[in-house]
Amino acid sequence: MTNQPVIILVRPQLGENIGKSARAMLNFGLTEIRLVAPRDGWPNPDAGPSAAGADQLLDDAQVFNTVDEAVNDLSIVYAATVRPRDMVKSVEVPEGAIKDLKKGVASGKKVGIMFGPERSGLSNDDITSADKIVTVPVNPEFCSLNLAQAIILMAYEWHKAGGINIPSEIGQINEPATKQELQSLISHVEDELQFRDYFRPKAREPKMRQTLRNLWQSAGFDSQQIRTLRGVFRQITRPKSDD
Amino acid sequence: MTNQPVIILVRPQLGENIGKSARAMLNFGLTEIRLVAPRDGWPNPDAGPSAAGADQLLDDAQVFNTVDEAVNDLSIVYAATVRPRDMVKSVEVPEGAIKDLKKGVASGKKVGIMFGPERSGLSNDDITSADKIVTVPVNPEFCSLNLAQAIILMAYEWHKAGGINIPSEIGQINEPATKQELQSLISHVEDELQFRDYFRPKAREPKMRQTLRNLWQSAGFDSQQIRTLRGVFRQITRPKSDD
Repeated sequence: MTNQPVIILVRPQLGENIGKSARAMLNFGLTEIRLVAPRDGWPNPDAGPSAAGADQLLDDAQVFNTVDEAVNDLSIVYAATVRPRDMVKSVEVPEGAIKDLKKGVASGKKVGIMFGPERSGLSNDDITSADKIVTVPVNPEFCSLNLAQAIILMAYEWHKAGGINIPSEIGQINEPATKQELQSLISHVEDELQFRDYFRPKAREPKMRQTLRNLWQSAGFDSQQIRTLRGVFRQITRPKSDD
Repeated sequence: MTNQPVIILVRPQLGENIGKSARAMLNFGLTEIRLVAPRDGWPNPDAGPSAAGADQLLDDAQVFNTVDEAVNDLSIVYAATVRPRDMVKSVEVPEGAIKDLKKGVASGKKVGIMFGPERSGLSNDDITSADKIVTVPVNPEFCSLNLAQAIILMAYEWHKAGGINIPSEIGQINEPATKQELQSLISHVEDELQFRDYFRPKAREPKMRQTLRNLWQSAGFDSQQIRTLRGVFRQITRPKSDD
């Protein structure tokens, strides 16, 4: 169990960049990497040489097929993206995101930050699996931050915040839901909607699913609330008692 | 005349790293490079490709034979080095150094930060030309910060100190829901649950309703999300399409 953010690389393209990312992380003490569908498979012989000694992180990297599987056991997930997206999520600068993650870690939560493929960045679909967005405020006239650079800035802020001891939030008694619990609610509701032809016209289905996922993500429900909601949906999809 | 720190690369070895340094700088709005005795001469054809568009900085780079010439017109100079040296100079972390440089700039001084060759870093001789030392607090067990990374951290702190202005939320266009809209959702869901004998045993009904209301309140949905949810509940309480 780590007490630091997991770094999730979504569909990374070049092994070299995975190695550089590991090096950037370790410079500031971050050690846990997860890879989602790395383009050239894993392990990748190009990663080691550019890790400059951070090979252990590569050896320990966990590989997942989907973003959802990669974030399943996490309670707070940030999506690192520079582009404004047509979705309602709160946006933090690195310092603010790290403070938030640090609070989470202090109260026993597992947290992570996900980064997209080098060329395209995270897709809107990827971002729906995150709670919030972290954006590095770069020069608007020259935004050419590469993967390892974006990671080193987050890792640097994490390291800087290392001395800060933030008390846990007041009134938070219930554990926050894990992504897996949230995902189970989302699937349940979407399945029921699917049965009832909610996703029409077909062309709008992906967008409709995104909207719903963002809606549930944004609510920040805890485990108990998720259980309550699953009970609500179970009950509400039954025939009326007087039928 | 610039009102930002000049970045001084002392005896840089690879053109590629000079290009990467320019790219790192421009990401955070720094534009003035000085080169002291670049190993492979100047201009260097390897620099441009790795500058990723920051070529103008390379074209404008000034070249000097010695560190002293390069810092001649500057009033405050920091030496970036990770190793403690046997000399009496004050040492700052990046944030502190940038604050100091910012004060200098505000009072009309020209300031700079110098970085050493990739392999060896600044020599003690080089450091004597600086006023102070800036050290990035890296992981003591893995210190493998390269030139462009050290530069990007300083540039990032510079940019941060400049007053970042990014919107707190992306895509937040919708008004937050009124309590009336929220109430309409709550009533809708509770009516459907009532029909289906959800509130049992009767003695627990008030508590169950409270729990649900707190749950919806805590989510902080906006008007659009409330409308989406009402659509979801309308659809989900219909018989399945294949019934």
